[in-house]
Amino acid sequence: MNQDSLKRQAAEAAVALVESGMVVGLGTGSTAAFAIDGLIRRVREERLDIVAIPTSERSDAQARQGGIRLTDFAAHHRVDLTIDGADEIALGSLDLVKGLGGALLREKIVAAASSRLVIIADASKLVERLGSTVRVPVEVVPFGWQTTLDRIGALGGNPVLRPDKAGEPFRTDGGNLILDCAFGPLADAGAMEQALSNTIGVVETGLFIGMAASAMVATADGVRRLDRM
Amino acid sequence: MNQDSLKRQAAEAAVALVESGMVVGLGTGSTAAFAIDGLIRRVREERLDIVAIPTSERSDAQARQGGIRLTDFAAHHRVDLTIDGADEIALGSLDLVKGLGGALLREKIVAAASSRLVIIADASKLVERLGSTVRVPVEVVPFGWQTTLDRIGALGGNPVLRPDKAGEPFRTDGGNLILDCAFGPLADAGAMEQALSNTIGVVETGLFIGMAASAMVATADGVRRLDRM
Repeated sequence: MNQDSLKRQAAEAAVALVESGMVVGLGTGSTAAFAIDGLIRRVREERLDIVAIPTSERSDAQARQGGIRLTDFAAHHRVDLTIDGADEIALGSLDLVKGLGGALLREKIVAAASSRLVIIADASKLVERLGSTVRVPVEVVPFGWQTTLDRIGALGGNPVLRPDKAGEPFRTDGGNLILDCAFGPLADAGAMEQALSNTIGVVETGLFIGMAASAMVATADGVRRLDRM
Repeated sequence: MNQDSLKRQAAEAAVALVESGMVVGLGTGSTAAFAIDGLIRRVREERLDIVAIPTSERSDAQARQGGIRLTDFAAHHRVDLTIDGADEIALGSLDLVKGLGGALLREKIVAAASSRLVIIADASKLVERLGSTVRVPVEVVPFGWQTTLDRIGALGGNPVLRPDKAGEPFRTDGGNLILDCAFGPLADAGAMEQALSNTIGVVETGLFIGMAASAMVATADGVRRLDRM
């Protein structure tokens, strides 16, 4: 089974949790796109009655074109259920690394406003310790980013400014920059998240600690549901 | 003596600390404007040889028009001395509330990059406990600000969205919003700063903890210099 089939299976398992009347948070990225596809289908075929808050311009466009009714935090301060992908998922805690796609800030705000965050992924994303396989993205304000980089560098991780496809500094939806940090396996991801959050110039980090309630993980043997321990 | 005379006296005492060769951080606000005036005069009259990093568009324009050479963090990752005002100064610790003028993010980034932060103020700004006389500004990202407000509200302070003169939401230089929080006298300003910093959606807070080295405080009896204890 190819990776797209696995992603779609995990997405469908999460989409099955959505019920009429819910405010649904829409994640960003290739796996989350399968979930939005699934929601579009349920809205069309089952008349599923939901409103959704997207975490990026891309997800906004996909949902809008598919006929999902969109809302915002002016109308709804809370989200019932958010479905999103992740770049790494820690076994047990379900702590996450997210933001390789660059939407970490909106994803984190929607996750923080959600009663339940369900992560969808294939099994390759499961790790013992966050930071093992990916860099941790840290969103920083453009003003003085060089000095913010110095202070993050003092925490380890050898931060580098993320370029876009044209080689210019990548800009997030909010106009900020991303520093990618190669921490390696983190002994205490929660402590690193706090140290980064307290660093002046940091807007948000890609470490999502204690936020995911469940993960739907697609394996060759089917979808495994993991709940936070 | 009127308040402007007091502010100018405090500003001049801080400007006297600047030496040729320094990278100088320029604060924002009515008191900081007197310091920029003083630096312009020393550059003209004494050929003081400095470069400066301003914390706002306003201070940038004032310094530029006065003939101060400007630089940025691409050229200099560190600042030798920053002179800035404050809205409250805690006796002893010299912890600060800043940002009533809306420039707290850049002010804080420049302060964090500075070897020495010198605060200038009149004696009305001295307090036993931060939060006693002013609201604490908290800069938040526009996306989902309503849900960020809810989470900050859970910390106390009854946050309100700052309006601009036209009654629209005030936008910072970085395009963010300000929530003003009436905490009242804070028993532990450092703990509140950490709690706010860890709140998702918060970019920076107006609590400057452990950052100021000295304060030049103008009183009817002259300028008192306070050093952090």
